[in-house]
Amino acid sequence: MKVAVLGTGSVGQSLSAKLASLGHEVKMGTRDVAASRERKGVDNFGQPLVGEWLSSPAAKKVQLTTFLEATKGADLVVLATLGQIAHDVLASCGQHLDGKVILDITNPLDFSKGFPPTLSVCNTASLGEQLQAAFPKARFVKSLNTLSNPVMVKPDLVPGDHNVFVSGNDETAKQQVKALLESFGWKAASIIDVGDITTARATEMLLPLWVRLFGAWKTPMFNFAVRRA
Amino acid sequence: MKVAVLGTGSVGQSLSAKLASLGHEVKMGTRDVAASRERKGVDNFGQPLVGEWLSSPAAKKVQLTTFLEATKGADLVVLATLGQIAHDVLASCGQHLDGKVILDITNPLDFSKGFPPTLSVCNTASLGEQLQAAFPKARFVKSLNTLSNPVMVKPDLVPGDHNVFVSGNDETAKQQVKALLESFGWKAASIIDVGDITTARATEMLLPLWVRLFGAWKTPMFNFAVRRA
Repeated sequence: MKVAVLGTGSVGQSLSAKLASLGHEVKMGTRDVAASRERKGVDNFGQPLVGEWLSSPAAKKVQLTTFLEATKGADLVVLATLGQIAHDVLASCGQHLDGKVILDITNPLDFSKGFPPTLSVCNTASLGEQLQAAFPKARFVKSLNTLSNPVMVKPDLVPGDHNVFVSGNDETAKQQVKALLESFGWKAASIIDVGDITTARATEMLLPLWVRLFGAWKTPMFNFAVRRA
Repeated sequence: MKVAVLGTGSVGQSLSAKLASLGHEVKMGTRDVAASRERKGVDNFGQPLVGEWLSSPAAKKVQLTTFLEATKGADLVVLATLGQIAHDVLASCGQHLDGKVILDITNPLDFSKGFPPTLSVCNTASLGEQLQAAFPKARFVKSLNTLSNPVMVKPDLVPGDHNVFVSGNDETAKQQVKALLESFGWKAASIIDVGDITTARATEMLLPLWVRLFGAWKTPMFNFAVRRA
């Protein structure tokens, strides 16, 4: 299918590469294509910047274009930007979001006061809910926001059973996202449907623990699980 | 050792019974001893109210007394009240908390607007931090607040590896709590020391997901785990 991946950071790169490897037609959306192409070198975590990444084998079949062009005609939109710009990015796509499934991987992390970040919205609302309310014709599914990007697309990087959560109001959209997750290697039994989009509060509120464990362990190679009796 | 368990609900009952079965001298604290003894029958979850529970075999060696009397001379204090009354309960113990380790199981759950509850404090603070700041001579260790009370004292009720978190400023106090958890059946490797008391924000913020999963699955018999690569 035709997939728009919005965001050129490490999450966007991982998702784009995986989707392309699965045979999907991937357009990676960015604000300024020429500026993105110029971004060479690596980020603070040693991940390639998008201009660097585009010349890697993994990116060979990924087309870089604007947010608007990426979403035009897309069958699925993957929202992989920083939480703080998610609303503006989606707004720049005009009517091309209407009716579409948006796999929303964002978190409302606020690093303005350093580490650990706080959440810019939580408890009585969530970024997932705010975006669904702002773009009511799109069908948001919050998922993959509770784990690091290498594990998102290759769950067996973390051994044993662990989980990914799904929140959204539209059952058909959730089914489509679950099928996509299974194509990434997630077992159906490992995908926990938490409920409607208000449950994005609960999964976004996992991030403070994720961030603390990352701080304590100095590695993002872990994931949450829920064990049932 | 002499343990004060503050709170007479199902968490206080489970902890008191387990501690007594391990040979500790347990005093269960309550606001009004006579009124507590009169509380017969069961709660909304079918758990016995404290007056009923006191006549069960599990409670045979547990002495019901006031919060103040329970903490007088205690080696360890277990805080197992509702979050909303935790401060007042501790204040009623006077100077008997000074220097003591407080195993704080509370969560700042606010059910005033129904289900699901919100948190009355989160993100930039936590109940754990507020209590530590209000009673600076006590040594708070937030733990066991992310799972249901049967599993707290019998972790193998949930199969497989799963975790309990520990947060606190005092390393000696955390070691004491970890040893206690091990005596309950927790493996040392299953106890995750998240860091200082500010990390209580992260574990208290797990509750919204706990509550949503409880709502979806209609059972409290599950627990969180973290899988590492």
